[in-house]
Amino acid sequence: MPKPGREPAPTKDLVTAYLKEVKTKVDACIFDFLPTTHKHQDVHQLYQMMLDYPRRAGKGLRPALCLLICEVFGGDAERAVNTAAALELLQNWLLIHDDIEDGSELRRGEPCLHQKHGIPMAINVGDALHCKMWEMLHQNTDILGHELAFQILSEFIQLSNQVVEGQHIELSWVHNNQWNLNENDYWTMCIQKTAWYTCITPCRVGAIIGGASVEETDVFIEIGKSLGVAFQIQDDVLNLIGDIGRYGKEIAGDISEGKRTLVLIHLFNSCTPSEAQNVIDIMARPRTEKTEAEVQSVLQLMQKYNSIQYAQECSNTLLKEAVEKFNQNFAHLPDSRAKHLFLSLIHFFVEREY
Amino acid sequence: MPKPGREPAPTKDLVTAYLKEVKTKVDACIFDFLPTTHKHQDVHQLYQMMLDYPRRAGKGLRPALCLLICEVFGGDAERAVNTAAALELLQNWLLIHDDIEDGSELRRGEPCLHQKHGIPMAINVGDALHCKMWEMLHQNTDILGHELAFQILSEFIQLSNQVVEGQHIELSWVHNNQWNLNENDYWTMCIQKTAWYTCITPCRVGAIIGGASVEETDVFIEIGKSLGVAFQIQDDVLNLIGDIGRYGKEIAGDISEGKRTLVLIHLFNSCTPSEAQNVIDIMARPRTEKTEAEVQSVLQLMQKYNSIQYAQECSNTLLKEAVEKFNQNFAHLPDSRAKHLFLSLIHFFVEREY
Repeated sequence: MPKPGREPAPTKDLVTAYLKEVKTKVDACIFDFLPTTHKHQDVHQLYQMMLDYPRRAGKGLRPALCLLICEVFGGDAERAVNTAAALELLQNWLLIHDDIEDGSELRRGEPCLHQKHGIPMAINVGDALHCKMWEMLHQNTDILGHELAFQILSEFIQLSNQVVEGQHIELSWVHNNQWNLNENDYWTMCIQKTAWYTCITPCRVGAIIGGASVEETDVFIEIGKSLGVAFQIQDDVLNLIGDIGRYGKEIAGDISEGKRTLVLIHLFNSCTPSEAQNVIDIMARPRTEKTEAEVQSVLQLMQKYNSIQYAQECSNTLLKEAVEKFNQNFAHLPDSRAKHLFLSLIHFFVEREY
Repeated sequence: MPKPGREPAPTKDLVTAYLKEVKTKVDACIFDFLPTTHKHQDVHQLYQMMLDYPRRAGKGLRPALCLLICEVFGGDAERAVNTAAALELLQNWLLIHDDIEDGSELRRGEPCLHQKHGIPMAINVGDALHCKMWEMLHQNTDILGHELAFQILSEFIQLSNQVVEGQHIELSWVHNNQWNLNENDYWTMCIQKTAWYTCITPCRVGAIIGGASVEETDVFIEIGKSLGVAFQIQDDVLNLIGDIGRYGKEIAGDISEGKRTLVLIHLFNSCTPSEAQNVIDIMARPRTEKTEAEVQSVLQLMQKYNSIQYAQECSNTLLKEAVEKFNQNFAHLPDSRAKHLFLSLIHFFVEREY
């Protein structure tokens, strides 16, 4: 039974079915593209490692956004599948390197690549997938022609610059043991590190392939900022209160890793100075030097001060803003399955429980 | 005074002057392109880290090969400067990640990037420069037009696939503690890991921009294999017997790092089983668990069995083969400053002492 106030079940089913449909198409494109066998056994092993993260079940949010927005503008989504697949490759090489940089343990329910094969090989596998992303974008020439293919490349370049900067900001906080962060610090990092590659670029490249004007394409910068941050906050919340079987990472892993989230910033703004110092003492230590009880004590403080609830409210507000911007700016576009699905999809992702 | 049997000094001076000329042009292109300042202090710091390796003095072999081969085919080298700069960016991101993967300490006379800032940040800086490489290649559109720019991109994609495979082969040897390697194993790894990015692609992209035919461009695969391996062997030799002040890495660092070189393979083929076992015992240990005396004992065995001399002879033979292939295949091209300089340059690099 759907809970009161939620989307009715049929819409959720539509979204789930659509995500499945997109995943089938995009996976076919990726697994047709990535090499699988080589007569040199070490190279063969590299190929298997390159297939590891792409084979782990992701939700396929980014490709779905790309294909839907392409359709919203009346484009043929089939022409955007290759670009959507490149977005998945991007996600995979970023995650491999990100997991090393954060010292993470689990990714999508399995040990991280560097936990399985060591840091040196994992760095190189990430690089290999990174190269494959540009190769896949290069193949757009045959699908979209030189000019449009170059425009898409340009979008990925802009995105890459954003994401490495966002990543550096977050790594700096860890490196400098910096905890006195405000919400603005968080927005800046999160927009650069997450919103660009999760929402802004997927929507922009979909729009471009769909034939949107420059002005229409640019609207997705603002929409994507709100949406991307909303998704990230929801991800951070699920990290704290999710179900490990469905979420695929260790629960409260962000506390173990000392990750700066909106939840944590709210906690610092709400708790007593001595509680804050205690939290910092726990968060700042390497994960191996934290007990489960210490991690739980931080989680309990977050619950005591309603920090998780606060973050969820922010996430909902951002979603509402994104929907309003979308409706205001694209009222002139005809009602379509794609428009309806796009709005359902973004609700689904902010309200998801895994 | 030039040593007897060496190139006379004036030719060496010409090469040195040409390398300097190319470096000035390519550096101008790189430092004009890479961002330098940002109002966000963490992003500003990232930009400074991205400039670190490019600012350290490299010899500029790859750009020089690219520009010279462009000229050999009658092309305007100015049109190839941007591509030559991308080759340097490639070299820099590869080195940053390679230094982490190998656990290196020094690069071009300074601590490696990960020694200065930690592995997480260094991985990300490498990624940032990697992205900048594709951005620089994207800018070729304005210089070379869409079609040629895409062809150059294609060359970099082929190269990237080679280099990550070669890197994986070498990392596998370390990971599997594998020492029973023959010369063929070494050639395969070295061609993929080094020859492609050091010689094959620099020459091929120079040829393409210079207007060479497909057949002419393809000759550089064989020339570049011989040359690239010759350079790498010479680099391995200098690692063992070079002058730290001029070479810029710790001497015999390859022994500390347990690197499989042609010198080492020759040693295993020449020494007694008990000597070999002793060498493996030393080489296989992490660098922190090796004494200076142990490193020196391996070096002395290499000298005892003339393994260093053997490698130098191989390097000279490969150089000779490359020169013959070049002269045979390109006799139809007019004599030019570029042809002369190319031949002098490759001699210079195989015979260099730093």
